[in-house]
Amino acid sequence: MVSQNKNKGIDMLTFTNTKAYSELKELAKKPFNLNQDGAITPKRLEQMVVSAPNWNFLYGFQRVDEAVILALTKLAQELEVHDKMAAMQKGEKINQIIGFESENRAVLHTAMRDIFSEAPLSKEYSDLARIEHAKLKEFCLKLDKEERFTDAILVGIGGSELGPHALYDGLYFFRKPNRRLHFISNIDPDAIAMVKRELDLSKTLVIIVSKSGSTLETATNEAILRKMFNEAWLNPNEHFISITSPKSMMDDKSKYRECFYLFDCVGGRYSSTSMVGALPLAFACGYEVLLDLLKGAHEMDLHALEPDPKKNLPLLSALLRMWNRNFLQLPTIAIIPYAQVLARFPAHLQQCDMESNGKSIDKMGKRLDYSSGAVIWGEPGTSAQHSFFQLIHQGTDIIPLEFIGLKNCQGGLDFDIQGTTSQEKLVSNLFAQALSLATGRSSENPNKRFEGNRPSSIFLSEKLTPRSLGSLLALYEHTVAYQGFIWGINSFDQEGVQLGKVLADQFMKAAHSIKAGKPDPSYPVANTLFEMLKRLK
Amino acid sequence: MVSQNKNKGIDMLTFTNTKAYSELKELAKKPFNLNQDGAITPKRLEQMVVSAPNWNFLYGFQRVDEAVILALTKLAQELEVHDKMAAMQKGEKINQIIGFESENRAVLHTAMRDIFSEAPLSKEYSDLARIEHAKLKEFCLKLDKEERFTDAILVGIGGSELGPHALYDGLYFFRKPNRRLHFISNIDPDAIAMVKRELDLSKTLVIIVSKSGSTLETATNEAILRKMFNEAWLNPNEHFISITSPKSMMDDKSKYRECFYLFDCVGGRYSSTSMVGALPLAFACGYEVLLDLLKGAHEMDLHALEPDPKKNLPLLSALLRMWNRNFLQLPTIAIIPYAQVLARFPAHLQQCDMESNGKSIDKMGKRLDYSSGAVIWGEPGTSAQHSFFQLIHQGTDIIPLEFIGLKNCQGGLDFDIQGTTSQEKLVSNLFAQALSLATGRSSENPNKRFEGNRPSSIFLSEKLTPRSLGSLLALYEHTVAYQGFIWGINSFDQEGVQLGKVLADQFMKAAHSIKAGKPDPSYPVANTLFEMLKRLK
Repeated sequence: MVSQNKNKGIDMLTFTNTKAYSELKELAKKPFNLNQDGAITPKRLEQMVVSAPNWNFLYGFQRVDEAVILALTKLAQELEVHDKMAAMQKGEKINQIIGFESENRAVLHTAMRDIFSEAPLSKEYSDLARIEHAKLKEFCLKLDKEERFTDAILVGIGGSELGPHALYDGLYFFRKPNRRLHFISNIDPDAIAMVKRELDLSKTLVIIVSKSGSTLETATNEAILRKMFNEAWLNPNEHFISITSPKSMMDDKSKYRECFYLFDCVGGRYSSTSMVGALPLAFACGYEVLLDLLKGAHEMDLHALEPDPKKNLPLLSALLRMWNRNFLQLPTIAIIPYAQVLARFPAHLQQCDMESNGKSIDKMGKRLDYSSGAVIWGEPGTSAQHSFFQLIHQGTDIIPLEFIGLKNCQGGLDFDIQGTTSQEKLVSNLFAQALSLATGRSSENPNKRFEGNRPSSIFLSEKLTPRSLGSLLALYEHTVAYQGFIWGINSFDQEGVQLGKVLADQFMKAAHSIKAGKPDPSYPVANTLFEMLKRLK
Repeated sequence: MVSQNKNKGIDMLTFTNTKAYSELKELAKKPFNLNQDGAITPKRLEQMVVSAPNWNFLYGFQRVDEAVILALTKLAQELEVHDKMAAMQKGEKINQIIGFESENRAVLHTAMRDIFSEAPLSKEYSDLARIEHAKLKEFCLKLDKEERFTDAILVGIGGSELGPHALYDGLYFFRKPNRRLHFISNIDPDAIAMVKRELDLSKTLVIIVSKSGSTLETATNEAILRKMFNEAWLNPNEHFISITSPKSMMDDKSKYRECFYLFDCVGGRYSSTSMVGALPLAFACGYEVLLDLLKGAHEMDLHALEPDPKKNLPLLSALLRMWNRNFLQLPTIAIIPYAQVLARFPAHLQQCDMESNGKSIDKMGKRLDYSSGAVIWGEPGTSAQHSFFQLIHQGTDIIPLEFIGLKNCQGGLDFDIQGTTSQEKLVSNLFAQALSLATGRSSENPNKRFEGNRPSSIFLSEKLTPRSLGSLLALYEHTVAYQGFIWGINSFDQEGVQLGKVLADQFMKAAHSIKAGKPDPSYPVANTLFEMLKRLK
């Protein structure tokens, strides 16, 4: 198999020319109907489960039968995707477009949490991670002794903000009583003004995250915050910490109280378990809570290496997403956590997924002739049921759902009202949604008719703890990676954000010239748009 | 025209059998290419603008030319949609499915803010709104005198939470210094535990919103909160306020300090300008700020009656959405406010739109043979640029965008760094995104290639004030309504949420029986799912 498919290290077998692809195309003509009589049985639900560290995955509400699962399994095997996962975790340079100038790097967010065993998969980067952890542990002890800082602002954008923010929210009941985090990502001056209103700067740390030190938003917001500290007669150098690449302009102890390192092999959207997430979370929840989160992520990393797709949760989840996306032609996925502390988790997954897999070329630079990354969106249940679920039940489009459910609440304060606790009501609603979307309901009144046959998956865990949250994070990271491996794309660069940056620079130049009373004729469109803006009253 | 199209009050002309529909189908075979040389000119941008109260709408970045705009205009005229808007605002019973049991009600959220003129369009309900406002004004004065309450919790779900929450966030810099709002919608016990942690109940008002008084989440959360007040030796009746239908079980002065009214003709997702939004916003920002918001909404209501689509902002916006959805076949819309205070605004619009237009039958109960409501999603820019914009620029699917931009920030604290202010940088980014998505960029390196031709609209205002925020809210409400009128659906009911409620009830019964040690055999699927949950460790 290997010798057939590989040629000078280049995979010749692609998604659409696998045997499994043709089989799946055929099977997709008559997918399993969830709304037929007796489709959803206890037996089906019991059989269609995969267990992984801290999470079970129920896929009995997907439009699949054994033949589809078998074909999806073959797809994974033909493309040898579990080997690609292993290659990633071992540090092969998989972040590249072959034959063209590209990043050409390893992808090692997993090494950032492979710090518990004697024989990590990628020793070089796990060793580097351990050095950062030693610094962090010492820093946390120092802060505890000082008893000065109650608040920290994380200044970063994209993955440097969304992941840590989602995890901080997700650990609400694990926070230290007198520690709070705040986030500034947007260049919007109101963003910084809002945070400043809530804070006593003398008790506030500022964590600046930027690999290069040159991100427009982060550099601007840092400059503004330094000004604010100076105006309050506080020395920024005692409050500011950097998380950056070694030797970047922000790796400078004369300007920062501490400098932590971020490595090239860890992309922003995968940086939550690097120092980017570790430092703020250790500040807010304590170093031990952070370690538990990393343990949970690491457990899922090891699980994700399992070759059998039927026993590999992120791989099976990825395959089912392929089924919905490329065979049933469904262009979006809604992620619905039945947990209020996970309210911002869909926003993190949205970036992690869409920035990774929103690509139109394969790893050889060839244009795809199939759909890749879907639109990912979602809000917490049960609230979402009273929002957009009308469309999910009765709209003209089918939206596959991923539900996240928990046996117990996180805060430990549950309430029995009329025979069931709130947590039981919450989970009852989750289950009821999955079932009603699948089976539908007939009615004489067309307005009360539900077609059903609308697919969903359910992730279940006992409780949202640092450990299970870490596993959940890694589970989604690996689902995204596996989808990328199957599509044959590079999920680890983000060239698509460059053009906007270049043009924004031109618009800022135009704005500057207009202000100076000398509109630069090289930017006619920008000048027009600013003129239109100026006229607004 | 009227006599031709109407038969016993039933419109015979439908979306797909208009003349304009066929024309548009033809035009959609060769839509205007934004990425051709010279496509985006200052002239085009200057011409493709509609002005409305407080907002300008730029549509030069849509894939339309004059022929398309003309055909869209005809579509609106053939279907006489501006008459439908007038009928709505006058109080005709448009919330119905003809020939089947249905809600059969007027739709009069506009009457809730039609309180400024001597001759409101629907006198009956505007008069009722005025009575509520008189109560509210007096209540606000009383609270100011008492100086007791610093915090209020709004307990409601769906529209009762999303709209007021989005507006409260949107008015961040207009809040009174010592007044804060909190929101509990989810049945999740952690939701209530999180809010409780932050509050001193003795200084807290609780506003319970439920039309019927029987919404599961709201009734449960109210019961829990009453318990908490009792345990803190506080009398709930001094703290709790209800917003409900006249004569509902919550219309009871022996249980609530005050009872405000919500009317049948105002749906949850359109209730932000009724007492549902008015009471919490008046508490947090003061009654005058609330009035400005309502004024802005009312101004847009009047504007929305304009018959000429080229001069009617919400109608033109609706028509352009139809073009993207039904002719260019694009299934989602991303709403990107370049304003951090509008961070939750897309979530409100998501519900308002998807619950209104996520329907599969027309007003006669006939199944649609075309797509209706799209998936609406979004996050604020510039942050979003560093999140999912990779997919928007280079993904395989096209996502139409609606940008919201402002000349000035709300907080009034802007910062000049390297020649431009943060607000200028913010707007520069918005414009740069619209332009780069339209024009794209060629490159030898396929990974640095941008196809362009990706459409967007831009809403621009001078500043986000209570007044312009009110206009923005109404603008979107009317865009949604116009789309519904064109599709010929009933945008004002939500039968699609009923089945889930029925099944949730069964699951709760099952949970109760299992707990009692006697699983009820009538719920085999529920029993299995709870068994699986129970086994989790």
